[in-house]
Amino acid sequence: MRKPNEMLNFTVGPVMSSPDILAIGGEQVPYFRTQEFSDIILENEALMKEFVHAPEEAKVVFITGSGTASMEAVVMNVFTPADKLIVIDGGSFGHRFTELCDIHHIPYTSICLESGHVVTDEMLRKFDGKGYTGLLVNIHETSTGVHYNPQMLGEFCRRNDMMYVIDAISSFLADPLDMTEVGADVIITGSQKVLACAPGISIIVLSERALKRVERNETKTMYLDLKGALKNAERGQTPFTPAVGILRQINARLKHIKEDGGAIAEIAKIKAQAEDFRKKIKGLPFEIKSESMSNALTPLTPTGASAHEIFLQLKDNYGIWICPNGGELKDTLFRVGHFGALTHEDNDTLVAALKDLQKKGKI
Amino acid sequence: MRKPNEMLNFTVGPVMSSPDILAIGGEQVPYFRTQEFSDIILENEALMKEFVHAPEEAKVVFITGSGTASMEAVVMNVFTPADKLIVIDGGSFGHRFTELCDIHHIPYTSICLESGHVVTDEMLRKFDGKGYTGLLVNIHETSTGVHYNPQMLGEFCRRNDMMYVIDAISSFLADPLDMTEVGADVIITGSQKVLACAPGISIIVLSERALKRVERNETKTMYLDLKGALKNAERGQTPFTPAVGILRQINARLKHIKEDGGAIAEIAKIKAQAEDFRKKIKGLPFEIKSESMSNALTPLTPTGASAHEIFLQLKDNYGIWICPNGGELKDTLFRVGHFGALTHEDNDTLVAALKDLQKKGKI
Repeated sequence: MRKPNEMLNFTVGPVMSSPDILAIGGEQVPYFRTQEFSDIILENEALMKEFVHAPEEAKVVFITGSGTASMEAVVMNVFTPADKLIVIDGGSFGHRFTELCDIHHIPYTSICLESGHVVTDEMLRKFDGKGYTGLLVNIHETSTGVHYNPQMLGEFCRRNDMMYVIDAISSFLADPLDMTEVGADVIITGSQKVLACAPGISIIVLSERALKRVERNETKTMYLDLKGALKNAERGQTPFTPAVGILRQINARLKHIKEDGGAIAEIAKIKAQAEDFRKKIKGLPFEIKSESMSNALTPLTPTGASAHEIFLQLKDNYGIWICPNGGELKDTLFRVGHFGALTHEDNDTLVAALKDLQKKGKI
Repeated sequence: MRKPNEMLNFTVGPVMSSPDILAIGGEQVPYFRTQEFSDIILENEALMKEFVHAPEEAKVVFITGSGTASMEAVVMNVFTPADKLIVIDGGSFGHRFTELCDIHHIPYTSICLESGHVVTDEMLRKFDGKGYTGLLVNIHETSTGVHYNPQMLGEFCRRNDMMYVIDAISSFLADPLDMTEVGADVIITGSQKVLACAPGISIIVLSERALKRVERNETKTMYLDLKGALKNAERGQTPFTPAVGILRQINARLKHIKEDGGAIAEIAKIKAQAEDFRKKIKGLPFEIKSESMSNALTPLTPTGASAHEIFLQLKDNYGIWICPNGGELKDTLFRVGHFGALTHEDNDTLVAALKDLQKKGKI
């Protein structure tokens, strides 16, 4: 139950947390250089590995920082200027990977996609046998709501013996993703997406092959150094004071997901939430310009109104946050998230507000 | 009032928060790309500037990360390999500044101090007129509890026209520090020290001179890039999803400090807490090996027991955390913090536990 005056949050992070996760946020944050806290981190690692079906040898690090902190840590620690990468640049997050490669002098070729479009096997085949050493992809390009095929990308990497890095920030536990099956070397996510905890922690799962690269590469940063993070992680610790409270929330949330049937059940729940919303908005003046949607969110283009204006109307007059876009997409695209503590009744509330705006001639 | 079974926390971070700050931790985390959240960040900036008495032109950035993230951001953004720095290396945090300079190829000379000792004017005078361009100091070397003289260091920097960087992580609002008077260019602190909020945010205040250096230096990182952070800060935003919940806690805390009399009153409160403790432990078998203590903490060397063993005894049998040391100091030093939601009665509880350990022959 929401409290009176509490906003209904359909953004894609931070999202609404369940009451038990909020309760942890309200507790004193414990001192953390203890075996008790180490046990929490080690349990978090085991459950993360279970939910992405990571190989036994994989390791997990928890970075106090946004998803971008982990994207940068991976680019800096796993790759060097001797690499030659493919970056799937299908929106602002894909583009961010190219900027990270620029900053750190990692050679790359970007596959630029038209907004809303997926990368195809045909596009990839052109790069077969050309000496590429790795692929960087945001498997769900969260800025535009396009979900790429992790299996197809994995086959491309496998046949070219490439490192396969998946930023699954908003896709982890929203869409099926099997690290072992697709052969991924890195999977990234964050605390404020489907994990529905407070923002402040991002998470990196590394395969044995990725770990070997981290080990042999020169350290170019202290805060984002994965060698140090991995060494500390062996005993369930972090090199620097982490966001201890959020790591405790993540622990509770991961255990609940496990109790409720694991990754499969969580993904099914979010899929049902997405399908319910997509069914209910039929007839409203929006277009969906995505070739392949994630269960995480629905990207909507209003046919007769400004997307940003709709965001402001819902925020100021209905107590509802949808997720606005910035930059070029500000007026043409908004997004409705399907994760966090949301119900099908919440979808009804949002759809009723949109219909009310329609009645008032605002959309 | 602590809840039953809640630990009494005398560490130096995370520390105990007041009930109203905890209540914010228990609230839903709002969406943040809004004017409402920008207003919070801008208010945080204004109050931070007020409490360090920053010059009008100074700016503040909030980094989602530990204090080390901000130390690294400052080293990377304010300095280049063309600089020549002095680093006060009086413990593990001072030493960390030298490691950051090594990683980023910034030339430096370290002034290595014996554990417990302060830097003196005589030591500094040797470096006058030698072309040094900046000084890095942890004004309170938190690892050993030594507080350096910010005025003396400031005069050294002023007469040599050097950038003056103060990591005041545990000293901010525990000891007097006037950015304008001492002529500091950078002051760093964190959410989990005297601000007594959850860990996950560090804060950097930059003078106009520091801002100009950030502006002209090449960007070598995305996540720790201060150019991007400062550009976003103009409108009260951050480049990446921040720890929104902790920034809201910081807002409430800064406003309370202001209501309660500002920096002067907060520092007086912590000073009284420290003096009360130092008075009450007289006669216990501990030595204080610090030439100059901060109000933030008291460093104690047991004369007849292992410091780490005392930490474990208090944790496991008395429900009390003191702050252990790692590495070489593990057995010889522990620290008792004086900030967070602590009272003089809490000092009584700790002292009684220590006396009980003494009675049992454990110390």
